[in-house]
Amino acid sequence: MTRITVPDQPTGRLTDAWRRCVGTGRFELALRRDYQDSLALVQRDIGFRHIRGHGLLSDGVGVHRPYDHVGERHVHHSFTYVDQVVDAYLDLGIRPFVELGFMPSGLASGDQTVFWWRGNVTPPRSWSQWADLVRATVAHLVDRYGLDEVRSWPIEVWNEPNLEPFWQGADRGAYHRLYEVSAHAVKEVDASLQVGGPAISPGADGWLVPFAEFVTDRQVPVDFVSRHAYTSGPGQHVPFGTHQTLAPATELLTQFAAPRRHLAGTALADLPVHITEFNSSYRPDNPIHDTAFHAAYLAPVLAAGGDLVDSFSYWTFSDMFEEVGIPTDHLVTRHTDGRIAVLAWAPVDVTGLSPAPDRHPVALSIPLGPAGTTSAFLLRSSVSEEAGNAWAAWAEMGRPRSPAARQLDALREAAEPARTHRALPVAAGRVEVDLTLTRHEVTLVELSPVVDETPPWWDATRLLGLPAETDRKE
Amino acid sequence: MTRITVPDQPTGRLTDAWRRCVGTGRFELALRRDYQDSLALVQRDIGFRHIRGHGLLSDGVGVHRPYDHVGERHVHHSFTYVDQVVDAYLDLGIRPFVELGFMPSGLASGDQTVFWWRGNVTPPRSWSQWADLVRATVAHLVDRYGLDEVRSWPIEVWNEPNLEPFWQGADRGAYHRLYEVSAHAVKEVDASLQVGGPAISPGADGWLVPFAEFVTDRQVPVDFVSRHAYTSGPGQHVPFGTHQTLAPATELLTQFAAPRRHLAGTALADLPVHITEFNSSYRPDNPIHDTAFHAAYLAPVLAAGGDLVDSFSYWTFSDMFEEVGIPTDHLVTRHTDGRIAVLAWAPVDVTGLSPAPDRHPVALSIPLGPAGTTSAFLLRSSVSEEAGNAWAAWAEMGRPRSPAARQLDALREAAEPARTHRALPVAAGRVEVDLTLTRHEVTLVELSPVVDETPPWWDATRLLGLPAETDRKE
Amino acid sequence: MTRITVPDQPTGRLTDAWRRCVGTGRFELALRRDYQDSLALVQRDIGFRHIRGHGLLSDGVGVHRPYDHVGERHVHHSFTYVDQVVDAYLDLGIRPFVELGFMPSGLASGDQTVFWWRGNVTPPRSWSQWADLVRATVAHLVDRYGLDEVRSWPIEVWNEPNLEPFWQGADRGAYHRLYEVSAHAVKEVDASLQVGGPAISPGADGWLVPFAEFVTDRQVPVDFVSRHAYTSGPGQHVPFGTHQTLAPATELLTQFAAPRRHLAGTALADLPVHITEFNSSYRPDNPIHDTAFHAAYLAPVLAAGGDLVDSFSYWTFSDMFEEVGIPTDHLVTRHTDGRIAVLAWAPVDVTGLSPAPDRHPVALSIPLGPAGTTSAFLLRSSVSEEAGNAWAAWAEMGRPRSPAARQLDALREAAEPARTHRALPVAAGRVEVDLTLTRHEVTLVELSPVVDETPPWWDATRLLGLPAETDRKE
Amino acid sequence: MTRITVPDQPTGRLTDAWRRCVGTGRFELALRRDYQDSLALVQRDIGFRHIRGHGLLSDGVGVHRPYDHVGERHVHHSFTYVDQVVDAYLDLGIRPFVELGFMPSGLASGDQTVFWWRGNVTPPRSWSQWADLVRATVAHLVDRYGLDEVRSWPIEVWNEPNLEPFWQGADRGAYHRLYEVSAHAVKEVDASLQVGGPAISPGADGWLVPFAEFVTDRQVPVDFVSRHAYTSGPGQHVPFGTHQTLAPATELLTQFAAPRRHLAGTALADLPVHITEFNSSYRPDNPIHDTAFHAAYLAPVLAAGGDLVDSFSYWTFSDMFEEVGIPTDHLVTRHTDGRIAVLAWAPVDVTGLSPAPDRHPVALSIPLGPAGTTSAFLLRSSVSEEAGNAWAAWAEMGRPRSPAARQLDALREAAEPARTHRALPVAAGRVEVDLTLTRHEVTLVELSPVVDETPPWWDATRLLGLPAETDRKE
Repeated sequence: MTRITVPDQPTGRLTDAWRRCVGTGRFELALRRDYQDSLALVQRDIGFRHIRGHGLLSDGVGVHRPYDHVGERHVHHSFTYVDQVVDAYLDLGIRPFVELGFMPSGLASGDQTVFWWRGNVTPPRSWSQWADLVRATVAHLVDRYGLDEVRSWPIEVWNEPNLEPFWQGADRGAYHRLYEVSAHAVKEVDASLQVGGPAISPGADGWLVPFAEFVTDRQVPVDFVSRHAYTSGPGQHVPFGTHQTLAPATELLTQFAAPRRHLAGTALADLPVHITEFNSSYRPDNPIHDTAFHAAYLAPVLAAGGDLVDSFSYWTFSDMFEEVGIPTDHLVTRHTDGRIAVLAWAPVDVTGLSPAPDRHPVALSIPLGPAGTTSAFLLRSSVSEEAGNAWAAWAEMGRPRSPAARQLDALREAAEPARTHRALPVAAGRVEVDLTLTRHEVTLVELSPVVDETPPWWDATRLLGLPAETDRKE
Repeated sequence: MTRITVPDQPTGRLTDAWRRCVGTGRFELALRRDYQDSLALVQRDIGFRHIRGHGLLSDGVGVHRPYDHVGERHVHHSFTYVDQVVDAYLDLGIRPFVELGFMPSGLASGDQTVFWWRGNVTPPRSWSQWADLVRATVAHLVDRYGLDEVRSWPIEVWNEPNLEPFWQGADRGAYHRLYEVSAHAVKEVDASLQVGGPAISPGADGWLVPFAEFVTDRQVPVDFVSRHAYTSGPGQHVPFGTHQTLAPATELLTQFAAPRRHLAGTALADLPVHITEFNSSYRPDNPIHDTAFHAAYLAPVLAAGGDLVDSFSYWTFSDMFEEVGIPTDHLVTRHTDGRIAVLAWAPVDVTGLSPAPDRHPVALSIPLGPAGTTSAFLLRSSVSEEAGNAWAAWAEMGRPRSPAARQLDALREAAEPARTHRALPVAAGRVEVDLTLTRHEVTLVELSPVVDETPPWWDATRLLGLPAETDRKE
Repeated sequence: MTRITVPDQPTGRLTDAWRRCVGTGRFELALRRDYQDSLALVQRDIGFRHIRGHGLLSDGVGVHRPYDHVGERHVHHSFTYVDQVVDAYLDLGIRPFVELGFMPSGLASGDQTVFWWRGNVTPPRSWSQWADLVRATVAHLVDRYGLDEVRSWPIEVWNEPNLEPFWQGADRGAYHRLYEVSAHAVKEVDASLQVGGPAISPGADGWLVPFAEFVTDRQVPVDFVSRHAYTSGPGQHVPFGTHQTLAPATELLTQFAAPRRHLAGTALADLPVHITEFNSSYRPDNPIHDTAFHAAYLAPVLAAGGDLVDSFSYWTFSDMFEEVGIPTDHLVTRHTDGRIAVLAWAPVDVTGLSPAPDRHPVALSIPLGPAGTTSAFLLRSSVSEEAGNAWAAWAEMGRPRSPAARQLDALREAAEPARTHRALPVAAGRVEVDLTLTRHEVTLVELSPVVDETPPWWDATRLLGLPAETDRKE
Repeated sequence: MTRITVPDQPTGRLTDAWRRCVGTGRFELALRRDYQDSLALVQRDIGFRHIRGHGLLSDGVGVHRPYDHVGERHVHHSFTYVDQVVDAYLDLGIRPFVELGFMPSGLASGDQTVFWWRGNVTPPRSWSQWADLVRATVAHLVDRYGLDEVRSWPIEVWNEPNLEPFWQGADRGAYHRLYEVSAHAVKEVDASLQVGGPAISPGADGWLVPFAEFVTDRQVPVDFVSRHAYTSGPGQHVPFGTHQTLAPATELLTQFAAPRRHLAGTALADLPVHITEFNSSYRPDNPIHDTAFHAAYLAPVLAAGGDLVDSFSYWTFSDMFEEVGIPTDHLVTRHTDGRIAVLAWAPVDVTGLSPAPDRHPVALSIPLGPAGTTSAFLLRSSVSEEAGNAWAAWAEMGRPRSPAARQLDALREAAEPARTHRALPVAAGRVEVDLTLTRHEVTLVELSPVVDETPPWWDATRLLGLPAETDRKE
């Protein structure tokens, strides 16, 4: 039994670092109807501030368009798809977190690519043409969306240049050059725009100090520092899928803290830090992302991460509806209208040695005002192995590959959190609530003070079917 | 414990008499946006075939418009509002069950009215002008909506003429005259249109045989017989409300059977019978309509009514989302796609002497094919005192008179049936399910055979957090 | 030929007094779907700030609900319909201009009523209960919508108390008492709320100074002064319609100016003036409102009215799509993005003696920047006897009473302004445009500077069907 | 002046061959939101029956998914994207015209590809695996959408196998083998499904008789014959575009007639013929498709094509809003409700030698009933160089590459046909209408008989601003 006594006065403030950004697949996907429908659902329920994905400058988006005319080579910059995607994002109330990359094939110095859609990861053949491309792209965005708007879009140079597959030779010197040229090109459009890097993956914190020294020595502009965070171990492959071991969730918080720890004492020490990707596993084919386990695993990270960084961006949004939480196994927030919300979650086991419990009891003691309040309305919403779990329902259905319309309806219903409500007495300004969490449950309890407007003549005992002596509602 | 063994083969067929018609308030209300929104919700979930309300010809709808021109009196018939309402109905997939009444004040012989909106209930000053009005109205409908369409709209003459408040003097002779003139006017537009009456309230079955004799003697057309059914006793008034005793629900079925019983042997013996209004209480201010008790009270009536009449029309739709059921305390239907649905309900007590039980256990044994099926997917949806019960949530909130937007959201969520799902084994072609119904619960259990498409390489034990030995889903 | 040379620099600023408020029928109508659909259309195209109608406190809205309990009389205030209407207004981006009236029958001292829906126009039986009603209503609005919001809703006491049909006996003393009680009740809720009167009709300017003296002597709060303005003469009735003579449109401007002229030197001299109703005729059955003539008649009033008053409210919105304009027969506005819009209109004849011309030529000379611009894009939208005139199309169709769906489609298309476009040269920073306005035409010409992005290789002469020498687009 | 006297009785029947099918780009594009929005617009205005595009089986759709498990190679067939696209089509009221192709890379025998998205055009490495793929795909469609539905979807084998770029070596023998294997695989799913070919391009009619002989000799099922039709000559390239000469539009009709002419006397003589692609030019970068010239050029083809073939499918839908017409320069249709519609178009010049006229007068004489009709309502909708021409407006705006929201609104308005209306007298059962068509205009004139419901008391001379003697509407 966990006993939680909520103090009478707030002890801190929950930042929204957890929803400042979210990850997405390659840029072009955002042209698709199902993508936009999914993102609209996420935005209705969560409301992320920014979104970041790969491939803005890759061939599929069609920005860099060389052509020959009267015997000479020219480049035409075309932003039709860029505008279409950014328009859709803004319509959905979300802004780009711009990632500059990968290399258009017409500007690439080699032919190494990443992913099945062939993002080119080699340096530009001409640094001045790369600068032209960056400048034209940023200038177009400012022209179309206004400087005030674009000023709020962080611009990050490349993705995980410390890894061979993402940057030819994992060449740090070449990345520094790329950063320098790009950062200057951005600032030439307007000095108030935000640019940053080095967008490194876990295990490359050794790049941080050299990056700081490089930009300091050469007076290269830098407005924020970025890094990624993941906890998965080596993969065991099955057809169309991968299983991986995981480090405990606290390892993510350790990674979040790394940039500030490494950069202490450098000129970059006080810059904002953005974790531009985080998750347990970076692999989309690891089924762990769809489990109730994952909701309870990430809950403490989402709650505590904001104390360490300015934003941390879940990679990626399309399987991330339930994740929310905080370390000590609950989180309490107070709203200005008197409501109190408690988020609680069940413990998880990442080792496989000590299975998580089937039942996790929690006793809450919660202050509720204003003075004179005698009753509270409780609304509880839960996800767990059984509730709010479309993945479990899909397994029970026999894992259909092409679910029929009727099955899709049932899955959508199964994805809704289970909701219950009741009235509770308020005594001495407090409500006592006993909860039992099931396996891997994450539950949200909202309590509102009741203003009783029942008219004086109302007498529930006169209603058929409601025995007076046991009526829980009166 | 109730044990229910579903036979291997169907034993009957459920008619849709219960959804052939639904009642509504006065005709003009259908111009309102909230009315149309509510009806759209009802139609999405239920899909009634017809809708019937009062006051088509009353002043508020503005059909009968006398004017003077060059010293003479003329009548202009205006159908602007009629068209607007009927267009809205057809857009929502529901057709009018036309009720001819009440009397326009420009044609009335007296000034007696009913309801606060003053429906005039006196005979016409001129029978030929009444015939003109009926003929013009029906001809307009045929002109605008087509004969094929209007032929499917029953046309009923007046409402409860056996009651003083609804027909001056409850004058049977005058009603017969009204019926005769109206029926002929309808048939003059087209002989294939359906006309009927006498639309009597409970307690007036003595009107049936004289009505049969009158129409037979004078060869007046009649295509259906109509009556109302209610079970409420005398009212005890409180401010803005009324409490009433109720007869057991079987009394409604007895009333449904009355027209056929009385008309046996007359020329009207084989006509369709429409119960054009039914409910426990006819009073909108009786709070019983909002209770879970009411759902369980009416369940057996909705299930068995179709054996007795061609339609029975709930009065009225705006508080009727959950009511469905059948006598022996369950109903089983089979769908062509192999699904089996069981509706079960808890017992109710109308006397107040033997309170309904808090728990009602049911053991189901259900055949499920095709041969070789080893697993079933169960989806359960329930309403009860606690679940799917916006009224209970509203009481817990302190019965707010003007609920805030946040409270309305919570009430809408509280109105959704509670849904759970699980996988069950199929053994020897049958699924065994143990259910426990709570107080006044009505529950729908749907079982579908599972076709297992889990790929051969899937191994649930490799997933973090799912202990192999207890995994209910594998 | 009218020659208009637009000066290089702006000479004034167009206020939005013309769209600060619009009139509507009685309050209850706003519950209807067709009403809300029409208002949504108006708001999409115009975007009025406030809306004002009669009958907030009349029986149909159901606010004042007396009842007896345990032998005593109580009053329950119910705001269900009020909330529904105000919610709908705010959703449509429009705010109430509150009119306090008419008298609930449960509080009335007599039974004189106005309109077919029977608005009671007698003083209250009890001044303290009237104060309770006003206070409860305003307090409820503040509670539900917030003080910041309601502070922006002017609250006007009654409607045209100087006319017998609207206020029993047209009793000025009784109105002063009503104003005093109401104004104090409003300010008791919050002193920052705006209250005003006396809401007089044309011909009663003699009430203004006594009203000023009354409120000054007794220190009654008053935040604005209100009056109505109409130009129609005596009516000639036909069935379902009325024809009237009209004074010239400048008479409306004279009426707008009356309150400031009369109140000069009083304590109310500097208060805002709201014309809470204006039109040619106040009669909804005068067909003049649907004509192209009316658009051209009111154009100068809408343009010049803002120099005289703080708002003037067209009575009523449901036939008011095209009216916009200014006296000297054109109006020029400049947008911050470089666009220039010119509104021009043809002259009208209200006397019937000198028919308006069939053709009205206008030559415009318009400055267009920035420097170096060589081409302008012109977009012209017109309404006239023939274009953007659903009423004319309806007459051509034979004035159908119940237009079929196909006819409604054609009418909607006929209601769209006629639009044409072309490219024009810019020479010495100016565009010269020759227009010909047809009978009663009101036309909007928008000019935008063209930035030519035609690529260097484009050669229109190579396109089939476009003879090079005459191609107007190159 | 063209004089057209419409005969009193109809002389033929317009088939809907012109809207039985429309072309689209590669299959995957249909996942995009803008694609679905454009198609929805086309369907609302035109309502095509089927849609045909390339690449159903190419890698991007992800149907053919080989994998290794326990040391063996398996193939998993995945239909997620297929279902998503087909669901979207059916929601829009359009059905697939299935094209089997191109080759999945996991099944291809070589690496020759077509288009930038790399459709593999080599024969399968294994004919039995190709048969498996076809069978699995068709069986899935039947399973998900029902046999009755899929039976109405023609299934065509490959695309233009007579061209090197679309089929390795343009190898006729290999195509016959592909056709044989595919047709049998389709019929194994259900014998009632429709399969056909050879889907040849213009200039390959020599393939028709050998195809007929092959399928006859080896008893291969064939339900329809397909061919493409184009009139463009050699291309002259400019950056991002191509200009081409065109043969006269009658050449298209000659091509439509080719399959029946060549197959006369063979076993395939009586089969349905589908022109599965037609247009002037097959190149999407030829700007001719956006011109008013093109509307007038194709008008006669759309009108006469249905006399020659069962369907002809415009390639492709995304720039095809205005094209409709018939040879002799007009087309008349009668609706069952009495309406008469006349489509007329101006002549075009494809040679550049004799420019099309600026004005083309047409005098129409049209019978209009029923007897006694004295007035007609005329509604005219036109597209031309100036009206209903977004392309012209875009050119006038300076051909913006990324039009701003305000420019897009203006372009959408500019794309609407220009509409005018008037009332015309009917004399001796006929209406005489004089029209003047402008350059490249295509105009639709709809005439409806007027039933005059003007009330007897209406007197237009009493309305201000409408001089009695010239009122065109009375």
